[in-house]
Amino acid sequence: MINAGIVGGTGYTGVELIRILAHHPKVRITAVTSRSDKGVAVSELYPNLRGAVDCVFCEPDVKFLMESACDVVFFATPNGTAMGMAPILLDAGIRVVDLSADFRLKDPEVWEKWYGEPHRCPELLEQAVYGLPETSRDQIAEGQLIACPGCYPTAVQLGFMPIIEADLVDSEHLIADVKSGLSGAGRKAQVTALMSEVGESFKAYSASGHRHLPEICQELDRFSRHSVSLTFVPHLVPMIRGIHATLYATLRDKDVDIQAIFEKRYATEIFVDVLPKGAHPRTGDVKGSNRCQIALHRPQNDQVIVVLSVIDNLVKGAAGQAVQCMNLSFGFDESLGLNAFGIYP
Amino acid sequence: MINAGIVGGTGYTGVELIRILAHHPKVRITAVTSRSDKGVAVSELYPNLRGAVDCVFCEPDVKFLMESACDVVFFATPNGTAMGMAPILLDAGIRVVDLSADFRLKDPEVWEKWYGEPHRCPELLEQAVYGLPETSRDQIAEGQLIACPGCYPTAVQLGFMPIIEADLVDSEHLIADVKSGLSGAGRKAQVTALMSEVGESFKAYSASGHRHLPEICQELDRFSRHSVSLTFVPHLVPMIRGIHATLYATLRDKDVDIQAIFEKRYATEIFVDVLPKGAHPRTGDVKGSNRCQIALHRPQNDQVIVVLSVIDNLVKGAAGQAVQCMNLSFGFDESLGLNAFGIYP
Amino acid sequence: MINAGIVGGTGYTGVELIRILAHHPKVRITAVTSRSDKGVAVSELYPNLRGAVDCVFCEPDVKFLMESACDVVFFATPNGTAMGMAPILLDAGIRVVDLSADFRLKDPEVWEKWYGEPHRCPELLEQAVYGLPETSRDQIAEGQLIACPGCYPTAVQLGFMPIIEADLVDSEHLIADVKSGLSGAGRKAQVTALMSEVGESFKAYSASGHRHLPEICQELDRFSRHSVSLTFVPHLVPMIRGIHATLYATLRDKDVDIQAIFEKRYATEIFVDVLPKGAHPRTGDVKGSNRCQIALHRPQNDQVIVVLSVIDNLVKGAAGQAVQCMNLSFGFDESLGLNAFGIYP
Amino acid sequence: MINAGIVGGTGYTGVELIRILAHHPKVRITAVTSRSDKGVAVSELYPNLRGAVDCVFCEPDVKFLMESACDVVFFATPNGTAMGMAPILLDAGIRVVDLSADFRLKDPEVWEKWYGEPHRCPELLEQAVYGLPETSRDQIAEGQLIACPGCYPTAVQLGFMPIIEADLVDSEHLIADVKSGLSGAGRKAQVTALMSEVGESFKAYSASGHRHLPEICQELDRFSRHSVSLTFVPHLVPMIRGIHATLYATLRDKDVDIQAIFEKRYATEIFVDVLPKGAHPRTGDVKGSNRCQIALHRPQNDQVIVVLSVIDNLVKGAAGQAVQCMNLSFGFDESLGLNAFGIYP
Repeated sequence: MINAGIVGGTGYTGVELIRILAHHPKVRITAVTSRSDKGVAVSELYPNLRGAVDCVFCEPDVKFLMESACDVVFFATPNGTAMGMAPILLDAGIRVVDLSADFRLKDPEVWEKWYGEPHRCPELLEQAVYGLPETSRDQIAEGQLIACPGCYPTAVQLGFMPIIEADLVDSEHLIADVKSGLSGAGRKAQVTALMSEVGESFKAYSASGHRHLPEICQELDRFSRHSVSLTFVPHLVPMIRGIHATLYATLRDKDVDIQAIFEKRYATEIFVDVLPKGAHPRTGDVKGSNRCQIALHRPQNDQVIVVLSVIDNLVKGAAGQAVQCMNLSFGFDESLGLNAFGIYP
Repeated sequence: MINAGIVGGTGYTGVELIRILAHHPKVRITAVTSRSDKGVAVSELYPNLRGAVDCVFCEPDVKFLMESACDVVFFATPNGTAMGMAPILLDAGIRVVDLSADFRLKDPEVWEKWYGEPHRCPELLEQAVYGLPETSRDQIAEGQLIACPGCYPTAVQLGFMPIIEADLVDSEHLIADVKSGLSGAGRKAQVTALMSEVGESFKAYSASGHRHLPEICQELDRFSRHSVSLTFVPHLVPMIRGIHATLYATLRDKDVDIQAIFEKRYATEIFVDVLPKGAHPRTGDVKGSNRCQIALHRPQNDQVIVVLSVIDNLVKGAAGQAVQCMNLSFGFDESLGLNAFGIYP
Repeated sequence: MINAGIVGGTGYTGVELIRILAHHPKVRITAVTSRSDKGVAVSELYPNLRGAVDCVFCEPDVKFLMESACDVVFFATPNGTAMGMAPILLDAGIRVVDLSADFRLKDPEVWEKWYGEPHRCPELLEQAVYGLPETSRDQIAEGQLIACPGCYPTAVQLGFMPIIEADLVDSEHLIADVKSGLSGAGRKAQVTALMSEVGESFKAYSASGHRHLPEICQELDRFSRHSVSLTFVPHLVPMIRGIHATLYATLRDKDVDIQAIFEKRYATEIFVDVLPKGAHPRTGDVKGSNRCQIALHRPQNDQVIVVLSVIDNLVKGAAGQAVQCMNLSFGFDESLGLNAFGIYP
Repeated sequence: MINAGIVGGTGYTGVELIRILAHHPKVRITAVTSRSDKGVAVSELYPNLRGAVDCVFCEPDVKFLMESACDVVFFATPNGTAMGMAPILLDAGIRVVDLSADFRLKDPEVWEKWYGEPHRCPELLEQAVYGLPETSRDQIAEGQLIACPGCYPTAVQLGFMPIIEADLVDSEHLIADVKSGLSGAGRKAQVTALMSEVGESFKAYSASGHRHLPEICQELDRFSRHSVSLTFVPHLVPMIRGIHATLYATLRDKDVDIQAIFEKRYATEIFVDVLPKGAHPRTGDVKGSNRCQIALHRPQNDQVIVVLSVIDNLVKGAAGQAVQCMNLSFGFDESLGLNAFGIYP
């Protein structure tokens, strides 16, 4: 049994972490912080969690987290918070699983370019482990500071990785047309995420450049023999949960059996499920589960391969993946607490 | 460990049963039937269940269910099916949990009036136990044939029961204005449930009389000292899961502490959660959970009491309640397999 | 041709006014104000209106409105704004159509009780005309200051009025269970109206007392021979536009032909459409139109009458009704600019 | 004033035609056919149209259409119907505007390949005019048989056309990732379009090949100097109306001013609206309008151009475009009856 703290417990990612950990047989939640809702019971703010935890939101204070005897601290915070608190926690021997973007990029200059401010602890970037178990399982198991991928990068990397690793496509002309539900925009008061604005409508956003692009490229690059160039366009879908990535790449060799390559690559992965030929994954089928479902298409049997990849952005794209990383880090069964099936319909 | 069969595994109620039972530590699913999809793997039709069950849909045949060594058979079928197969199963000592309307009404003439055909085994009606644990726990524990309530009746009864039992309101002028998501309409091809028809729109239906009315009245009557008369108007909400009942009754005595009465009545009920004063339950907070959340209001502190009651129609309103009844019937812990919290957001 | 000014052009009601007036053959929009978006072109903020108007949002300033030679000024503002500017405009002979709550209540003490601050020009309350053409057509035609009803009051009054006027029901036990889309919550940044909060969920709110209650009672009282007492519970539907009122009342005499009474009452009303017996109106059928559709039910042919009444909250519940009032006030054909049919699907 | 007949008046395209034509100052609807709803009043089936038309659905019979003195007949029918009736109507001098796929493809063999049956009047294919006014205005004005484009082809062609005509991109590697609301699936009873199936979920479909592909290629080819090869993947969005095309192409020359090229190309087009730099069109902004809104992006200022193009699939993608073609064909003002602005929110 380990003790876990959650910094930033009032966002959607934080609530989802609590929901998942409430059923985890090896974890006790000992602290949940929230600056804005300090003193309020978690279950008062989130009636779905009544009976799940008896925590009261507390000040996001490093000292308090250490007094709570945390073995691990999750950061479900806006970018910039984890980098302020992580060094002290790490020094105290506490493991850190960061769901924000603070430690995902290796190059502090790239970070500064995309996040608009200098990185405040670049010295930790090298030590940080990228928390995508399907590509970095061993490092995660050894790591003390785990930087969980963003939701878009998870869906896109799991879809592209097998063909990039095997050097089967022209990696300089990749296209990722990705669609996300609204929970990805977080739980903050903003006109652009009102139901009246986004319901019954569909749009792209940040088409000229989105912060998740450098992260995806950095990781694909690690596994690619050639340089990687990606066009990445995110879109907003009038639904709450779910990401659907439609990925386009040009095969070097038309005769390769792509279906077999994906099935082999993910044969032992519990949370990546390659669907049979001809399938079209639905985000609805992975809602509430930690699963990525993938299907492959070759329109007109031509040179272009289309990869369809779906996840629940709050689970495999955030809280579930963080728990998966924690499981690896503490030597637990990788799927502990994560065996829920998708809620359909 | 017991063996369970599911007749009618391709409707939403059937799929939800499989999803819940897949995690139940004491149940093995040994047969899932579907006339229309015979021979197809369950997980082919329902990719959310890939890995959950390795069943293939089989013919809905009594003999086959008996050969599958079922200890219990669930009917998640259209009305009229269970009454044809239940007698043989019961004779063979198999317990039957019926999620359809076949055994809910005690009076075969009332059944015939509302369902438009004669009841085909009226002799079983007396023996059938009404499967609402919060009012009929002991009978369910003893019963061999359990008639699970409809989704509307569950939400309405749990909301009205404390004040009816305690004789606090004028039971001859009850109003239930109830709203349901679309999954209540089932998984059959029909224009009236198309997204284009029901999305972004709201409507009442069957306002002049709905089949769930006699069932609600029958049960409220059992617990009322006075005769019960109810106006019941169902509505369709553009969402998938959830029922919200808004119940109106006139208090005999304005000075009674309704909040205290509800809290006391449901103090030991695991799946009925009375919210604090001033709350307004959201169907979204019970999505995927077996919980009923209830809140109470007294507009202008006047004589009218408003009870707000929400459930997930597929869980507490169908599959979850059926599993709860099965747990009681087999002497398992009542909440086994049913401890999921609501999925929010 | 008259000149119109719109104060508060950036809320949903304001945008809808512009959309409707853009096609009005007798109206030229000469000023649209917005404090927050001053200097921005209307069509930049609202791309659906590109080509409809070439206005730039200006400061909400009385002097500017008078310089714009406005014949009429619409207030599509939060409560409290119109009462500050209306006196000067009225003095200058400009007609005022107020879509906010400032002039709806006759009693300044009731206003203060529900709106939490003293009314700042109670001397205008008597002069203000309630802008529901179906009950107050003649006064509107004569009025200089028109107080348009709220969205809930419009749907509820049109549904109750025929039976209240004709004294057919027990007016002391009325129930209005009303459901609204999210656009009623306005276009302001707030967590409670985010898609992730309200999508796929249903809830009541303000069940213990909502500001539209005194307005409804005041107006029903005007037309009732007996005192009126109403229980009014509003709900949020996961959709954008539309209000559905489900109204319950007890008939004094069971033998009255309610259908005939409604048909007669609204025979000459262009914007109230009584549906045939057995119908259930859909909010979707009046989306974008100025129409109220009504249907009547008598469950089990009993003493309770159920009235179903639907409107588009932004049209007949706000901007459309305001234009209808303006038409009456200036002697135009009442339906000018308002003949759009509902957008289905 | 001309007389119009509508064959197939009960589908979404048919209803939308009636709604648009009801306000058209030069058109009288004299016949609306429907095999399934023969004898029913149009406004009984579609309460949004009460008062719009007093037609009763009649048998889809050529003789009846001719007796109704139709000057033009619209086919809003499933594929295969128009080709059976058009020859007789054309012989009688009646103009035909076909909204189905029957006359869109020039090559009967391609038709047979994609639609699974031989074309029944290939002799008309040459004479048929492709009904996209922005590329074929003059032919439409002269044509007697107009084949209106599909909804996907409209959004995709308007987005690609300027750069294809000007030969600015590599036309052999085009990608169209397109998203559609559910009304595109039509108003027929089918499980796959139920709210419970498609709500709160997102998926691709027909990723390996969709019938609209050959039509798009045929038309782009007409205007391209090089051969055209397109990967086209359609997706289902949980909303009712709207198509969003995200188009990817590689520029031959990075220094070209794409924004200027689009603005110039569409400068005189009333229904194509090129948004300012940096914009992201929303399908919601064109809902109910005949407009196509387009925006252009150059991610990382690189060689890939991203075109975002939105339409309302039932208006500019079907009924509105058909009326636009009819206007051209009869020499009316092209925008007659089509000046509605998008309904927002």
